[in-house]
Amino acid sequence: MNPTLSPPPTAPVASAAPAAPAAPAVTPAQLGVGARFSLHPMTSDFVDVILGALAAGDASRLEVTTDDVSTFVRGDEADVLTYLRDVIGAAASGGVHVVAQVLLSRGCPGEVACELPDDVVLHPVELPALAPTGLRASAHWALYPLDDGGPDPHGGARTADHMAGIYAAIERARERGTLTRGEHFVTRLDGDLADVLATVADGWLLVGREVRHVTTHATISLGSPGAPPPAGTTGAATSGTAHEDAR
Amino acid sequence: MNPTLSPPPTAPVASAAPAAPAAPAVTPAQLGVGARFSLHPMTSDFVDVILGALAAGDASRLEVTTDDVSTFVRGDEADVLTYLRDVIGAAASGGVHVVAQVLLSRGCPGEVACELPDDVVLHPVELPALAPTGLRASAHWALYPLDDGGPDPHGGARTADHMAGIYAAIERARERGTLTRGEHFVTRLDGDLADVLATVADGWLLVGREVRHVTTHATISLGSPGAPPPAGTTGAATSGTAHEDAR
Repeated sequence: MNPTLSPPPTAPVASAAPAAPAAPAVTPAQLGVGARFSLHPMTSDFVDVILGALAAGDASRLEVTTDDVSTFVRGDEADVLTYLRDVIGAAASGGVHVVAQVLLSRGCPGEVACELPDDVVLHPVELPALAPTGLRASAHWALYPLDDGGPDPHGGARTADHMAGIYAAIERARERGTLTRGEHFVTRLDGDLADVLATVADGWLLVGREVRHVTTHATISLGSPGAPPPAGTTGAATSGTAHEDAR
Repeated sequence: MNPTLSPPPTAPVASAAPAAPAAPAVTPAQLGVGARFSLHPMTSDFVDVILGALAAGDASRLEVTTDDVSTFVRGDEADVLTYLRDVIGAAASGGVHVVAQVLLSRGCPGEVACELPDDVVLHPVELPALAPTGLRASAHWALYPLDDGGPDPHGGARTADHMAGIYAAIERARERGTLTRGEHFVTRLDGDLADVLATVADGWLLVGREVRHVTTHATISLGSPGAPPPAGTTGAATSGTAHEDAR
């Protein structure tokens, strides 16, 4: 047992039923949760737009480090997502064409060593609803469950199935109304910036319930002169079907 | 056996040694090889820069489809890489700050269904040297071996080890002289644009010898006002050490 883990909660003594095995709690930092993103405002004024946008997010509960290529964000999932929505939204609010690249990552091995015990619960994280921004976004989205399989409860080894998580996440996007269609190598999402970000995070967290190391990438475009006209209703965006090869 | 595969080559009859099992040849299209990329010139003139850059690449042996979010490229590995170098290089050649997002993908399941027989060789692809561009690039690079494991030759199942391929690819980058250091979630590369692209593709193809479905993402920045000054020699860029958590 990793000594930095919180002690498992004690089962209530009044319970007549046998207690479920106690699951140690893990923090986002122990799971290496975080984001890396870059903002690309297509204007000669890009430095001011980027600096103004970065100042528009609430980083008080986050670790944020910007270098010349991208910005790293560490914190819990809801704070990271809210920050991304506010910063990307601020960059696009002036009407300039902005593309944001977003990478979300969690898990081990990779960012952090796998020092967590095998039976640690990859606790389900439910994101609070992200308030809409009024900004329409189009995204190309990829999701990567980096599942190595593992020991089989019946002895031997378990093979992984990385496509199963991808399909489940696409189904979630369909339910949310942001799924447009599968494209080569990516899935296209359209909708309010907040809904697009929530879709990306939802799929990532859904896979994260089963797989320790999961990343997701999205290219999110706002204010593009080449964007298709917005659909009249949110529902219209769901009429596309995902290709079987979508992810 | 998939009927669209070429017949296996006949073993030479004059050979006294037992012939190795004949490996069916597969094409890049059968493996779903291709790229998706986007160009972000940070200038109000971005449309002209993007259109001019796209025209600078030789697409004669490629399928190229541009939409409002990104551009899809299908073809063999060397043609795709040469095209990316020429298009990204053209966008940055005027001195404007340009960021390119590049995704390379190959394999199944995913882009293509896994209709190839299990024993098909994931043939090693050696890229020809890419001529340098004279443009200095800095990149954040991530590599994703999507290995599900599989049947064990001794019976049972084989678990995967996605980090092994990532570490091997980072070692290749070190040998090439483009490795700067590991960052959170990504590995930083610096060097001539051609060397940075070749490093990204090398790692991807190295993992592709063992793993059927492999993708890689790079955020490649050129002409950034915030970039560190170029090192005096290529060798100096290798003095950074990769973190153990690098990928």
